[in-house]
Amino acid sequence: MRVVRTVAQLREALDYMRQGGHTPVGFVPTMGYLHEGHASLLRKAGEKSNTVVMSIFVNPLQFGPNEDYASYPRDEARDLELAEREGADIVFIPSVEEMYPQPTLTKISVSSLTTRLCGASRPGHFDGVTTVVNKLFNMVQPDYAFFGLKDAQQVAVLRRMVSDLNINVEIIACPIVRENDGLALSSRNVYLSAEERSQALVLSRSLKAVRQAMDEGAVRTADEARTLLISEISSAPLAVIDYVEILTFPDLEVLEPGSPLTASGSEIIIALAVKFGRTRLIDNNVFIPKEAPALV
Amino acid sequence: MRVVRTVAQLREALDYMRQGGHTPVGFVPTMGYLHEGHASLLRKAGEKSNTVVMSIFVNPLQFGPNEDYASYPRDEARDLELAEREGADIVFIPSVEEMYPQPTLTKISVSSLTTRLCGASRPGHFDGVTTVVNKLFNMVQPDYAFFGLKDAQQVAVLRRMVSDLNINVEIIACPIVRENDGLALSSRNVYLSAEERSQALVLSRSLKAVRQAMDEGAVRTADEARTLLISEISSAPLAVIDYVEILTFPDLEVLEPGSPLTASGSEIIIALAVKFGRTRLIDNNVFIPKEAPALV
Repeated sequence: MRVVRTVAQLREALDYMRQGGHTPVGFVPTMGYLHEGHASLLRKAGEKSNTVVMSIFVNPLQFGPNEDYASYPRDEARDLELAEREGADIVFIPSVEEMYPQPTLTKISVSSLTTRLCGASRPGHFDGVTTVVNKLFNMVQPDYAFFGLKDAQQVAVLRRMVSDLNINVEIIACPIVRENDGLALSSRNVYLSAEERSQALVLSRSLKAVRQAMDEGAVRTADEARTLLISEISSAPLAVIDYVEILTFPDLEVLEPGSPLTASGSEIIIALAVKFGRTRLIDNNVFIPKEAPALV
Repeated sequence: MRVVRTVAQLREALDYMRQGGHTPVGFVPTMGYLHEGHASLLRKAGEKSNTVVMSIFVNPLQFGPNEDYASYPRDEARDLELAEREGADIVFIPSVEEMYPQPTLTKISVSSLTTRLCGASRPGHFDGVTTVVNKLFNMVQPDYAFFGLKDAQQVAVLRRMVSDLNINVEIIACPIVRENDGLALSSRNVYLSAEERSQALVLSRSLKAVRQAMDEGAVRTADEARTLLISEISSAPLAVIDYVEILTFPDLEVLEPGSPLTASGSEIIIALAVKFGRTRLIDNNVFIPKEAPALV
């Protein structure tokens, strides 16, 4: 495994792999503080690619002024161990100065898809994501890029950027990885106190409950689903809801309030963002709604 | 020479050339209705590259609602003759549907550089240019891309996009090509009546006059240069000035009104946009200001 810190070194390492015929190239962009979710992306990349590149970069552009850029957890030594163990060939760890040698005047924005969910709560966040991912794609020129579905809106936005800009890469979305008790893995989980950690289980539990209620026919519309989710989440006293939304996926369009979820003819995302203390957690479930059995 | 009309055909033609070792790849993006200016770009591309790709696409995204998108001159047969004669290997002529199969939600914008000159007169124009050129770069993945300095602001904006987004291409700016009488070549010259065509010579003439006045020390500041240019251009009764600006290049920053041009420590652009009837022409001169002789 080769660790590179400049764009020039990265390009040189990639040229070497390509000239040796080690293609296709798979790419896993991360902000580091790696966990089993990232490991699953590396393994998937290893299955599909002969060169696996991982980047570790906490991108200041995608953090708002009152967000956790400065305190975002970092542990390079542990990250490199995990990357090596999970088969990364090249790890790219640029400094902020290497990524932004001058303030960027160029911004990439995807409209419409970024107005809801985390786009509404975190203004400018997705412009920061699309701009940095575009830069990384231009540096790595991967055949495949791997992203976790925990950031489902990010997947939708990046897919749209790739298709709108004819970028020659396939975005591969990988399933959410959870702890045994259901908590979705996130580098930010480290912020949680024991009590918050325990109450945060309400996210996965409420997603499970609403899917079960749908399967049983007790919940049929977006409004009913939302009501149930809010009531479930509110059972955790520390939970402060940022949003609870049920939208089409990947177009992220609002569903008719009263019409059955099956009427949308699309995949559906149930997306949650909830604060516990100062920590904002997200979770979601993407699925194809099935016709529920008639209520007896 | 191969003519391709879809992105898939283009990528296939490029793969074939690359696999045959015909690299580097040079790219000349155009809106067609080719003239000797475009021919000079193709020749330059041929000197530096072993595969020369030209695109011909009148990009609706970069035209304002009251601009000449519909009437922009087109002549594919003549364009193909010129491309063949000047050594293009691949000519890409996509339809609007091929370039924009769905309305693009993704936009690329370069701030600051696009607020002045044509950016001020044509709101949204440069977002359209950067977005389509980015798409074309992703399709062609050229080593070099060739642009005429007649659109000097476009060169400055695209260079900044390439550097901000780490696009792996070198932008090569080529000198303005002029008719024998000084008129800068432009596909839009075809719109001019005989009388307008004759009066349009005031653009190159005034640029020449101001440079001469600088060399002689009669003009030393941006304000003096601007006053002389406006007076020269106003001698043509049909000329309606859109802008006359003297800025640093390529940063396009305003110069101190009273300070000598040599004080900027930068290249300077004198940029003109003038309407003759319904036709808007641009011309410019980029140079390093020299210390003028002391006035006697």
